Amino acid sequence: MQYSFASRAQTLLTSPLRNIRALAKRDSFISLAEELPAEELFPQHSLAEAAAAVLSQDPRSLQYGEAEGYGPLREWLSQDLGRRKGVHVQPDHILLTTGTQQALDLLVRVYVEPEDPVLIESPTSPGMLQVLRLQGARIIPIEGDEDGLLPDELERQIVEHKPKLLMAAPNFTNPTGVMWSLERRRQVLERCAKHELLIVEDDSYGDLYFADAEGIEARERIPSLFSLEQPQGNHVLYIGSFSKTVAPALRTGWAAGHRRLIEMMTAVKQMADWQSSLLNQRILQHMLDSKHFDLEEHIRMLNREYRTRLKLMIELLKRKQWKHARYAVPEGGMFLWVELPPGLNGDALLRAALLKGVAFLPGSMCSPSEKADGCIRLNFTHPGRDELLLGMNLISEAVTEFTARS
Amino acid sequence: MQYSFASRAQTLLTSPLRNIRALAKRDSFISLAEELPAEELFPQHSLAEAAAAVLSQDPRSLQYGEAEGYGPLREWLSQDLGRRKGVHVQPDHILLTTGTQQALDLLVRVYVEPEDPVLIESPTSPGMLQVLRLQGARIIPIEGDEDGLLPDELERQIVEHKPKLLMAAPNFTNPTGVMWSLERRRQVLERCAKHELLIVEDDSYGDLYFADAEGIEARERIPSLFSLEQPQGNHVLYIGSFSKTVAPALRTGWAAGHRRLIEMMTAVKQMADWQSSLLNQRILQHMLDSKHFDLEEHIRMLNREYRTRLKLMIELLKRKQWKHARYAVPEGGMFLWVELPPGLNGDALLRAALLKGVAFLPGSMCSPSEKADGCIRLNFTHPGRDELLLGMNLISEAVTEFTARS
Repeated sequence: MQYSFASRAQTLLTSPLRNIRALAKRDSFISLAEELPAEELFPQHSLAEAAAAVLSQDPRSLQYGEAEGYGPLREWLSQDLGRRKGVHVQPDHILLTTGTQQALDLLVRVYVEPEDPVLIESPTSPGMLQVLRLQGARIIPIEGDEDGLLPDELERQIVEHKPKLLMAAPNFTNPTGVMWSLERRRQVLERCAKHELLIVEDDSYGDLYFADAEGIEARERIPSLFSLEQPQGNHVLYIGSFSKTVAPALRTGWAAGHRRLIEMMTAVKQMADWQSSLLNQRILQHMLDSKHFDLEEHIRMLNREYRTRLKLMIELLKRKQWKHARYAVPEGGMFLWVELPPGLNGDALLRAALLKGVAFLPGSMCSPSEKADGCIRLNFTHPGRDELLLGMNLISEAVTEFTARS
Repeated sequence: MQYSFASRAQTLLTSPLRNIRALAKRDSFISLAEELPAEELFPQHSLAEAAAAVLSQDPRSLQYGEAEGYGPLREWLSQDLGRRKGVHVQPDHILLTTGTQQALDLLVRVYVEPEDPVLIESPTSPGMLQVLRLQGARIIPIEGDEDGLLPDELERQIVEHKPKLLMAAPNFTNPTGVMWSLERRRQVLERCAKHELLIVEDDSYGDLYFADAEGIEARERIPSLFSLEQPQGNHVLYIGSFSKTVAPALRTGWAAGHRRLIEMMTAVKQMADWQSSLLNQRILQHMLDSKHFDLEEHIRMLNREYRTRLKLMIELLKRKQWKHARYAVPEGGMFLWVELPPGLNGDALLRAALLKGVAFLPGSMCSPSEKADGCIRLNFTHPGRDELLLGMNLISEAVTEFTARS
């Protein structure tokens, strides 16, 4: 029969990431395209212990749970956000989601109507763009610099478009890795509050702060937009996850914010999938509460290793092929954003790289305009050091061929 | 600030089920309102073994997985559907979802535009109605009798409305527990195929077939719409889950169908939450593949126990308060659908019952019209025998009070 799909659904099939993933299944393929943590660093043993404990206790850990998510995990999170990030939020202002991607999707489903204007930090993550496209939002990119979003530009667009939302990731923005300055955070918050604009603050990467490898104190960190607004504020929905700090397969993220936002998102969550896995939430909570596991120490270990991998990548970019490439070295996160040597196009380079058995994310996927077509996003957290070396060699080869040709 | 939610999102907050759930958290409260399996029957020990095995092996069980779901579990499912249900489907025509609720939601998101007419078996599950309401579908209920949907009525509505979809659950429909006859299945399928109408066949309850307690052979079962159409058909999307047969907290359901449908649903799944928990899928697959666990034997045990609980409920309905109530005894599933004595309203009875510390699902939640207002849905799978007795006593008391008053 002829299936007649909803018109916007067609936009979902255009993602080149789908083809990259299909190729990446080949054994020797190296992908610097994805957003994966290093699996050899997962707290596998601690999670095994937690799973054994949870499954030997209460059979209700296998039952349906509450749409909001497991209460004791929301309580743990409430305390952890307060202690480590100066974010004060009650457990009943937190919704547990299937990763931050679901938190974004749920918020957009209850908040955005087709044709509604939505501001996004540009460039941005492909996942955020897809969510907005399926909902039919009018996507308005806002530029930034090395300190974060440009506040005057932001205000100009707010006044012109009267948008429903601003979506941003002030800590190590995906893909650029920019960390917004405190001053810039204050300015952005002030403009949004003045115009009553809701901000979705994605803090998926904030814990991957490499200064933390040296034992930086939590209070030395730049506060989130969410915490800057406290105690009275309600312009920010704060989202994050355990995918980068513990393990993605637990599929546990969260949204925290005003009770009305959380209530509405919980209602749509219940309709979308009833709830995320209670078993995973209980295993996670059991491990986090155990004396044998220290999340801060674990994150510090991750940061030491990821910082080393980033340094290696930076070294490899000092080769002559990359002489005319530009990049800022991020202080954390998972990605290096590279502006290719002049004349090179990310999509074309990717096609050449795929033939060599390596992938990265072309900039075109991170922007609704053509502005990022000359850029690529390189992931340095998943490939081990050998793989990283080999992968960068292959990409460098592809760059050489293009440069020689032009 | 003033949040301005999308207009349809408001429909999400009206569910009385939300209040029932809040009340049900009280310790002594008895709920016959929910759709819960009996937790004391979960294969807790086998799952603990499987979790230990999976977590001691490959750390990739904790990594991001594929949006389609874990390959070996899709292969297992493909074989199981063939062996036990005569459903022949290749693993790459299967998408693993977060329960059947997500399968419904994903399909509706890619297939239905606002104002599109959609036919549903009536009465139907509250979850199905919510999905359609949020998408803005025009919901058209189709009546049935004790053999299933009425085919002439179905065809009349197809011709009048040119709908996008028919949503139905031929095996122990939620809430009525009706099992469609083979003849009726053929008729419905033939009308839909003639008019090129896609059917979403929800087989969440098909395994809970109490004749199976006596060891009925798989081939004696009435085949699904999906398998009746094979090998050439493509008018049916077949959905189901492990929530009722293994455990809900694994949040593992599936959709099986034509490659184009599965591809589009996979794309929207990736946007919605990347993927369901790979860890859960691997634990489940490990247990199902293990020699120490036999799913058929496990389901047979469930059916013996659930049949006993249903019998007890039927006995309790023989009391005088229920003399003028009407119900058909289902051959399986999780619910008994009761038409209350004349003059009684399900919502009003629920308010009285809640004060007594017991809940059920009022019929009003299962229908877009007022047709089911005089009915209630009773769950007999979750409450243990004592709880079931006590719960039914309390509901009977409420009925007596109403009947005495009128």
